[in-house]
Amino acid sequence: MSEVDSFFKSAFSVDNVIFGFDGGDLKVLLIQRGAPPYKGKWALPGDLVYPNEDIDTAAERVLEQLTGLKGVYLEQVKAFGAVNRHPLGRVITIAYYSLVKTNDFQPTPASFAQSAQWHSVGTVEELAFDHNQILQSCLTQLKQKVRIAPIGFELLPPKFTLTELQHLYEAILETELDKRNFRKKILSMNVLHDLDEIQAGVAHRPAKLYQFDQERYTRFLEEGYTFDV
Amino acid sequence: MSEVDSFFKSAFSVDNVIFGFDGGDLKVLLIQRGAPPYKGKWALPGDLVYPNEDIDTAAERVLEQLTGLKGVYLEQVKAFGAVNRHPLGRVITIAYYSLVKTNDFQPTPASFAQSAQWHSVGTVEELAFDHNQILQSCLTQLKQKVRIAPIGFELLPPKFTLTELQHLYEAILETELDKRNFRKKILSMNVLHDLDEIQAGVAHRPAKLYQFDQERYTRFLEEGYTFDV
Repeated sequence: MSEVDSFFKSAFSVDNVIFGFDGGDLKVLLIQRGAPPYKGKWALPGDLVYPNEDIDTAAERVLEQLTGLKGVYLEQVKAFGAVNRHPLGRVITIAYYSLVKTNDFQPTPASFAQSAQWHSVGTVEELAFDHNQILQSCLTQLKQKVRIAPIGFELLPPKFTLTELQHLYEAILETELDKRNFRKKILSMNVLHDLDEIQAGVAHRPAKLYQFDQERYTRFLEEGYTFDV
Repeated sequence: MSEVDSFFKSAFSVDNVIFGFDGGDLKVLLIQRGAPPYKGKWALPGDLVYPNEDIDTAAERVLEQLTGLKGVYLEQVKAFGAVNRHPLGRVITIAYYSLVKTNDFQPTPASFAQSAQWHSVGTVEELAFDHNQILQSCLTQLKQKVRIAPIGFELLPPKFTLTELQHLYEAILETELDKRNFRKKILSMNVLHDLDEIQAGVAHRPAKLYQFDQERYTRFLEEGYTFDV
């Protein structure tokens, strides 16, 4: 065996932190493991990557198996490679997060899972492997990214009120935001489209509905501005 | 061979984008490869990870071999895992970037490199493997991160002028910044310490020197503020 061969003895997997928002808490979709190791424990959905499969493709496969969704927001965060993180051998895992609209699908547990269920991010208990650490890293990345890129909209219905948008930001950033400042910042970028519609069927005074406007955002970037919430 | 064994046939490496700043351009430290594949080509410094080595440890090892530096800013960006990215087999690489002060060391090429040299990021030519793509990803990450965290100071001497700080941001963000707005944003956070000193030995009117103040920054965070340039 050549010196180089001794390096070709590891495997790698992808794990996917699938975030959703129900208007209240920020949620994460977890599976209950149906096989060892960690049978019965809650875990992030993930799988080993096939020898001829790109890592992004593997992440999309895991997401589609569980949610039926394609083409949703999916971003790689980082690799986790502690020497003893997996009982079967040296397995590096590449962590991804996705942003989905919870109403768009019913989770279908893949073959290796007993069940799949939304959990509030703030109250997630001990997960299998190093999955708590992976969840934290993805959450940190999401917190940074929502401030500088218009990705939060991926978690909202296509039409939303400014209050719903603020609640989303508050749930992700885990902090209360000043209503007046938040609205000023969001509206001053001029990347929302005022739909000239109001909410229907609400008990309180109906609020105006907005939509994220990709064309305006493209112009906004071209003019040298940067998203900043 | 069990089904699982067929997955344990890959290797992984780390590659490190070492950024520096000389007052003009943003620089990256490249090595010229001394062995195949890509012998003679410029590349990012990197190495295969040993079977019993954590990936962060491997990145620190590569950095120390080349620069002699320990404990400098080092951040993992993401994994690159296209199926055919490496001619020797399936090799996933984990990309890191470091921020160093160019005056702190003389680069020492490691055993696998003919030479090591600073290159301006903006004029880097074709690199070995997928290293241009890795450089771009790390640059994108750096651009995002300098806006929301006080990491740019890692690239400056301990004492700097506001003009030097602005030039650094302009070099990283590849854009001109408005002097008045930049100073207002930086100073309003109150995370710089005015040293009550001025530059020595400059031809123009000497400017005031500042230092980043970690204690003030800790208080700033505790009070619920976020770094924002």
